[in-house]
Amino acid sequence: MGKVGKFWIISLVSCGLSFCCTSAAWADPIREAIESQNQALIAAMLAGDAEAAGELYTEDAVVIPPGANLVRGRPSIVSFWAGFIGGGVKEMSLVTVSVESDGDLAHEVGALKLVDGEGNASEARYVVVWKREAGAWRLHRDIWNAP
Amino acid sequence: MGKVGKFWIISLVSCGLSFCCTSAAWADPIREAIESQNQALIAAMLAGDAEAAGELYTEDAVVIPPGANLVRGRPSIVSFWAGFIGGGVKEMSLVTVSVESDGDLAHEVGALKLVDGEGNASEARYVVVWKREAGAWRLHRDIWNAP
Repeated sequence: MGKVGKFWIISLVSCGLSFCCTSAAWADPIREAIESQNQALIAAMLAGDAEAAGELYTEDAVVIPPGANLVRGRPSIVSFWAGFIGGGVKEMSLVTVSVESDGDLAHEVGALKLVDGEGNASEARYVVVWKREAGAWRLHRDIWNAP
Repeated sequence: MGKVGKFWIISLVSCGLSFCCTSAAWADPIREAIESQNQALIAAMLAGDAEAAGELYTEDAVVIPPGANLVRGRPSIVSFWAGFIGGGVKEMSLVTVSVESDGDLAHEVGALKLVDGEGNASEARYVVVWKREAGAWRLHRDIWNAP
């Protein structure tokens, strides 16, 4: 094989490798699935639908809100969000900072912004442990605090 | 085989199964490793040794204390705990409520009690995401809030 042939093979391989690496950096299917579940949570909150919010949690999930008792299990979580939604949610955003996973567990660090029914804005940082059940990622541990 | 023989075989098998189940309920080596690391963290805090506390975290760990900025990376975490320890830590306890793991990631829910140098007591609930690196479980995400 001549020098030109070798050059083209090396170029193609290196091009292929850089394409793979670039794709990997862009596409993290678990992060995408989690971000999509976050959008579903926001939609449920804005719609005032605590049942739909609760469906995004595992049956034995634990929510740890600042200044309140631990909330254990989906029925209690639905009640908790129903009480929260009762005051109205005008705007909500969840910005994912990092996601890491192994097997059927993932953890997310993120930032929450919220405007309640009376127009009061608040911010928090959160850690969510996500668990994959029958292919769907659900919130399994959910804790946040104010900066 | 007579009825008595069958009885003994069934008894032995059932006894063996119940022993296995009991052992599994008692011995969770990952939970034990995490509880042991928690004791090391308490020892470091009581000794005022922020470096030793920092060694228990991963290099790229994130600590999210209420009312303060995110603390990213081991050097910043050592500084954070040095500032915290500066006020003195008289008593500290970490009680593990639950541990679950998959591969090299585990998450813990627990309760913290603390008495500072001036005798002020405080309580918090926490979620820690633990990561196994070269066989050692280290704190990787650490967030807490007050009840």
